[in-house]
Amino acid sequence: MDDRYLLVSADCHAGPESGHYREYIDPELREAYDEYLENVAGMRGLLAGNQGGRNQFVDRFLAETGDAGLQSVSDAHKRDALLDADGVAAEVIFPDADVLGVGKVDSSPFGSGLGSSGSSDPEKVMAGARADNRWLAEMCGESPDRRAGVACVPVVHDPERAVEEIKWAAEHGLKGGIMIPHTWAPYPAYNDPRYDVVWSACVDYDMTVQTHSGGGLGDVQGGPGAIAIIASESWFMPARPLWVLLLGGVFERFPKLRFAVTEDGAWWVPDAIERADDKYLGTNHNVLKMGPNAFRDGLTMKPSEYFARNCFIGASTPTPSEIARRERIGITSMMWGNDFPHPEGTWPHTRDWLAIRFHDVPAHECRRLFSLNALECYPGFDADTLQAIADRIGPTVHDVHEAPVPQNPDVAGGYTDVAEDTFV
Amino acid sequence: MDDRYLLVSADCHAGPESGHYREYIDPELREAYDEYLENVAGMRGLLAGNQGGRNQFVDRFLAETGDAGLQSVSDAHKRDALLDADGVAAEVIFPDADVLGVGKVDSSPFGSGLGSSGSSDPEKVMAGARADNRWLAEMCGESPDRRAGVACVPVVHDPERAVEEIKWAAEHGLKGGIMIPHTWAPYPAYNDPRYDVVWSACVDYDMTVQTHSGGGLGDVQGGPGAIAIIASESWFMPARPLWVLLLGGVFERFPKLRFAVTEDGAWWVPDAIERADDKYLGTNHNVLKMGPNAFRDGLTMKPSEYFARNCFIGASTPTPSEIARRERIGITSMMWGNDFPHPEGTWPHTRDWLAIRFHDVPAHECRRLFSLNALECYPGFDADTLQAIADRIGPTVHDVHEAPVPQNPDVAGGYTDVAEDTFV
Repeated sequence: MDDRYLLVSADCHAGPESGHYREYIDPELREAYDEYLENVAGMRGLLAGNQGGRNQFVDRFLAETGDAGLQSVSDAHKRDALLDADGVAAEVIFPDADVLGVGKVDSSPFGSGLGSSGSSDPEKVMAGARADNRWLAEMCGESPDRRAGVACVPVVHDPERAVEEIKWAAEHGLKGGIMIPHTWAPYPAYNDPRYDVVWSACVDYDMTVQTHSGGGLGDVQGGPGAIAIIASESWFMPARPLWVLLLGGVFERFPKLRFAVTEDGAWWVPDAIERADDKYLGTNHNVLKMGPNAFRDGLTMKPSEYFARNCFIGASTPTPSEIARRERIGITSMMWGNDFPHPEGTWPHTRDWLAIRFHDVPAHECRRLFSLNALECYPGFDADTLQAIADRIGPTVHDVHEAPVPQNPDVAGGYTDVAEDTFV
Repeated sequence: MDDRYLLVSADCHAGPESGHYREYIDPELREAYDEYLENVAGMRGLLAGNQGGRNQFVDRFLAETGDAGLQSVSDAHKRDALLDADGVAAEVIFPDADVLGVGKVDSSPFGSGLGSSGSSDPEKVMAGARADNRWLAEMCGESPDRRAGVACVPVVHDPERAVEEIKWAAEHGLKGGIMIPHTWAPYPAYNDPRYDVVWSACVDYDMTVQTHSGGGLGDVQGGPGAIAIIASESWFMPARPLWVLLLGGVFERFPKLRFAVTEDGAWWVPDAIERADDKYLGTNHNVLKMGPNAFRDGLTMKPSEYFARNCFIGASTPTPSEIARRERIGITSMMWGNDFPHPEGTWPHTRDWLAIRFHDVPAHECRRLFSLNALECYPGFDADTLQAIADRIGPTVHDVHEAPVPQNPDVAGGYTDVAEDTFV
């Protein structure tokens, strides 16, 4: 019970302080970047204010954390200290660390971060992605054992150009793989063979492909409840590439390709996969009129078998409902993450949060969710090196399972009030 | 056990034989309609063929049914005879009866049927909807007790104009309410108060509002597995209006408004509603940064309470997984339907299908799903009149629950092979 869990957070964020990206942008686009920053500042002004009673939450987070983790976003040593305190030995780093929309940290330039899509300007979004990747490679280089940086690669506009960036990222230590836009329109969907050069390069360079939550369908632009509506359905676009790749036969054509969907919930996975299996097996009568073989086209295994072999779910801070459904979601697929330094994550209360949520989950399953799956999804990590760090700073098995369950009012949201069997 | 179940199918389809809509189209648009039909014929040519091994399914359905129900689509008496044989006393009629894409029956003109969206031409789509509504009112008028016709009303382009059509439909006996486009873009989403005149009229005329499956996001246009991908995610767009209306406070502003989502699955309902409750109650920490009140804006009850009061799910031919989850989906919300005469429905095997799927579901719950919920969703039906029909043609309680479970190889899809507890 004195054993310490290795925690690998499969969902963290970093980015430099405002203006710092400029020197990483190609010189011919720096003026355009200045204009872009002015527009972003204007939008931030529109979004500011106490909408929805937001200030109370912001104030509490600032009071708890001192600076909302702002120093950590570009200072690897400060970052290590905060992760140590939270019990986290290693992290996968996505872009867009601007934790509260307060504008002290930039988003990945030209919309190349979490909201990247096919509608971006091809030249600018690739230049922005390259700027983030260059900055991130430097930051990760300061304590490389603990960090798997994720390269932004807007693959939709020019797949061949994307391959060059994948190669660059792999050669510069970004072992978190690549994040692709979850929204491909107006370009073809990811089942299209035009992207096979991308998947092939990711296999060759051992780079995981992933989407991450950020942005929605874009057709709810205001009116009553707009924030609630957008937040409720924002899971859908980042989730789509999973079944597009799977049913499009990409995992058949690239058996070694790894794909993860991160910070996008996990509750939707069992139905998505079971429904795909039903169609593949012909047990779903409703779709047979489209041709029974339409659901086997290019596949040699059941969808659930590809999912188990090729896919991971960066479940971040799973709900009680998701933890209760972990078997169906996939014990070997789910990855925990603290979403550091975002305020919707568990930092700086990860130790309490893990004990509250996981105290009755068997330790061998916790190990899968806390690190073993992440070590498979991101093979650039060295397990022994990280366990040595965990042996110093990780939560003990006793802390999570045997100590009295913490009553921590700062672990917001009344987690302990929700009966788990409500959700199964 | 000799009691007979009243079956009200909440999901049926009808439309006239090819070319017959023309006389219902406003004269000035008849030439445009001829052009439209030529385009449709061209598209049918493209879609024909044995893709996915479809022909085997089509051939079997034609062999079973003689004419795939084509005569019934515009002949109310033939229709009554086929429904009698299937055990169905009453039906809710949506457009687009073209059961196999063979082109012997038209779809609602100018795309005003199941694929209606905000991107349709405003004048043409309303003219097409009016043509269908006029034809449907005549057809339903031949045996009005058994039929609740659903008016096509493309509300997005001009809500005031839509109100006129709602009034017309109510005054001409279309007691199935109205079907609205599931895709509003480029017009505002349904939370926008511009549509309040529509909801108000639906309350005033006691007309249920509904969406129905048909069409997807439109950004997967080919490539490997395209049919499987589109079929897998086609539930999403028709489902969206449910949470857009709910979180947009429409059921708060119109407490008597009834809304149904039809032939769009039911598996997604529990998560959609429970997640909305979590956000409303503040138990979901992840969204608090958007402002805790953002998820209560304009609401005075939990989302699940609006759902229970205002919403119905036309679950059509639910899967074992959905039947197993009926409590969470809502015993007072789910409505069965045979999807007659579509080949993906249960016709002509409804009696066997009900016994296979519902034999171990308590009779009082079956009554809810088979008819009681539909009688609440469509109050224009008279329960006593329909029970008198059911007493002649309905399946008995013995047939469903006590007789040996049928082994019917024509109830396609291996239903009996699937363990129900796989899905809960």
